Amino acid sequence: MHAIGIDIGGTKIAGALVDAQGKIVFEERVPSPAGDPEAMVDAVVGLIKRLSENHEVIGAGVAAAGFIDAEQSTIIYAPNISWRNEPFKAKLEAKLDIPVIIENDANAAGWAEYRYGAGRGYKHMIMLTIGTGVGGAVIADSHMLRGGFGIAGELGHLRMVPDGLLCGCGQHGCLESYASGSALLRSAKELAASGDPDGKRLREIEAEAGQMTGLEVYKAILELDPGALRILNELGAWLGQAIGSLVAVLDPEVVVIGGGVSAAGDLLLNPIREAYLAHLPARGYRPELKITAAEFVNDAGVVGAADLVRVAFRDR
Amino acid sequence: MHAIGIDIGGTKIAGALVDAQGKIVFEERVPSPAGDPEAMVDAVVGLIKRLSENHEVIGAGVAAAGFIDAEQSTIIYAPNISWRNEPFKAKLEAKLDIPVIIENDANAAGWAEYRYGAGRGYKHMIMLTIGTGVGGAVIADSHMLRGGFGIAGELGHLRMVPDGLLCGCGQHGCLESYASGSALLRSAKELAASGDPDGKRLREIEAEAGQMTGLEVYKAILELDPGALRILNELGAWLGQAIGSLVAVLDPEVVVIGGGVSAAGDLLLNPIREAYLAHLPARGYRPELKITAAEFVNDAGVVGAADLVRVAFRDR
Repeated sequence: MHAIGIDIGGTKIAGALVDAQGKIVFEERVPSPAGDPEAMVDAVVGLIKRLSENHEVIGAGVAAAGFIDAEQSTIIYAPNISWRNEPFKAKLEAKLDIPVIIENDANAAGWAEYRYGAGRGYKHMIMLTIGTGVGGAVIADSHMLRGGFGIAGELGHLRMVPDGLLCGCGQHGCLESYASGSALLRSAKELAASGDPDGKRLREIEAEAGQMTGLEVYKAILELDPGALRILNELGAWLGQAIGSLVAVLDPEVVVIGGGVSAAGDLLLNPIREAYLAHLPARGYRPELKITAAEFVNDAGVVGAADLVRVAFRDR
Repeated sequence: MHAIGIDIGGTKIAGALVDAQGKIVFEERVPSPAGDPEAMVDAVVGLIKRLSENHEVIGAGVAAAGFIDAEQSTIIYAPNISWRNEPFKAKLEAKLDIPVIIENDANAAGWAEYRYGAGRGYKHMIMLTIGTGVGGAVIADSHMLRGGFGIAGELGHLRMVPDGLLCGCGQHGCLESYASGSALLRSAKELAASGDPDGKRLREIEAEAGQMTGLEVYKAILELDPGALRILNELGAWLGQAIGSLVAVLDPEVVVIGGGVSAAGDLLLNPIREAYLAHLPARGYRPELKITAAEFVNDAGVVGAADLVRVAFRDR
């Protein structure tokens, strides 16, 4: 039977009807009414109704950034949408005749990679999603690790540096402050402004574009500009060091790197691998770890959310 | 049916016949031939044979410090015993007529707390064992987290400080280098030698005893000596900060603190709790965590190892 996956972003909502092999049958995107919780319910309900027209579906999985409770029902906290303890599952189910589960968006994306992407065939996987922030997902022994309160796998908040950079979570020194797209952009701006010869090309690109955004940094990376590669290397080194700690805790077979910044491919993966090997506890006494790029580009959230509906109803 | 639990230490081997309620029926300790792998097999076989005399037993669980493979068969690496890729399960089973599993000692102790001790009634628990090193165990959704290669839960090797103190694992900045009994002893010696007024009592105790050992430090802690409490607070602060990171990754309901240093009770637990609250990502958006002392004193290893035999044969 088919299932529906929904991925709520800050600017748009993606929805898809997904078959039992993880293939998208039909897909639709609508604008995200991020500031308006009631309009959000209506937008998601409308999308689910249209996607399920003329199809028998097992249920809908809805992915969103934020803390979701262990019952996959309530959005406890969403950083980018005005939700606090939002009983989103109940609100959706009141207007639908199919069951709904709510899932963290990084978890949904990680599940898609585990089932149908770069983590296929493994039982123990972690995924780091390098976007505006750093998201995480942990698959342990073929199960999504959700934790006691539903908020495990927040790998961007592993603390890397005592009294380090301030993070959006209120703490200091979190991985996210060193290894996110935002951190890369900050480093690019700093390097461009520093007068360092390595910042020359970034300075030019910034001047041409009128401002520095992720696109400008990515352009300099693709040009193999030494300054852009230097800051990408630094970002990769933080990720590799974090993976060293995560391996001590979770011992995965494979680490999948996704998110916008992962488009840099081996230019990002190689410094991650080098730093990981340099920071692995008891190196030589465990098999080497596979560190690889995500296979899904845009659809991991909807495919993962749809598949997790199957898991939820198989488990119940 | 009863099960046998064995806990191999550097100086002695503890063994127990344990009933289905986790109660010890009969216990025996023998010296540990730590330097001699063949004598170790004979010592453990002899202990298991004596403990199982006149009892029907389901099997024997053998706990040892080190990396155990995911099949619970081979000791990949044991830091204190001369084992490298030792097929210990096969060697024991060749001389016994009951099945054997091998388990990491911190995992076995954590399992005992989860089943019968401070973690009873929870589904998501982590345990930190503060002894000579820092051991760890992770229970996720009522299962022991072993990871892809059997070496998950090495929580002492979470990296706390970039380019920090050298750890026995070969890396720098691991939690174990800041929060183990060895670290506490190092800090006590440094404080005593520093001329700092807070080191006065530690200096006296060291002079009386002829040398500083864990016992001297513990004596000063029980006297509420300001210097000893200061270094214990610092140790607790590292543990609390590590728990902040571990909560982001694992989201446990309860954290159990065990091992020799945990005998300090609330003198250790309170600084842990304070530092944890100060370093929790997104504080206020998740329920507060219970941080508590282990309930077992000496027998966690044998009780946990015996119980894990039941799990292994229920799961197969």
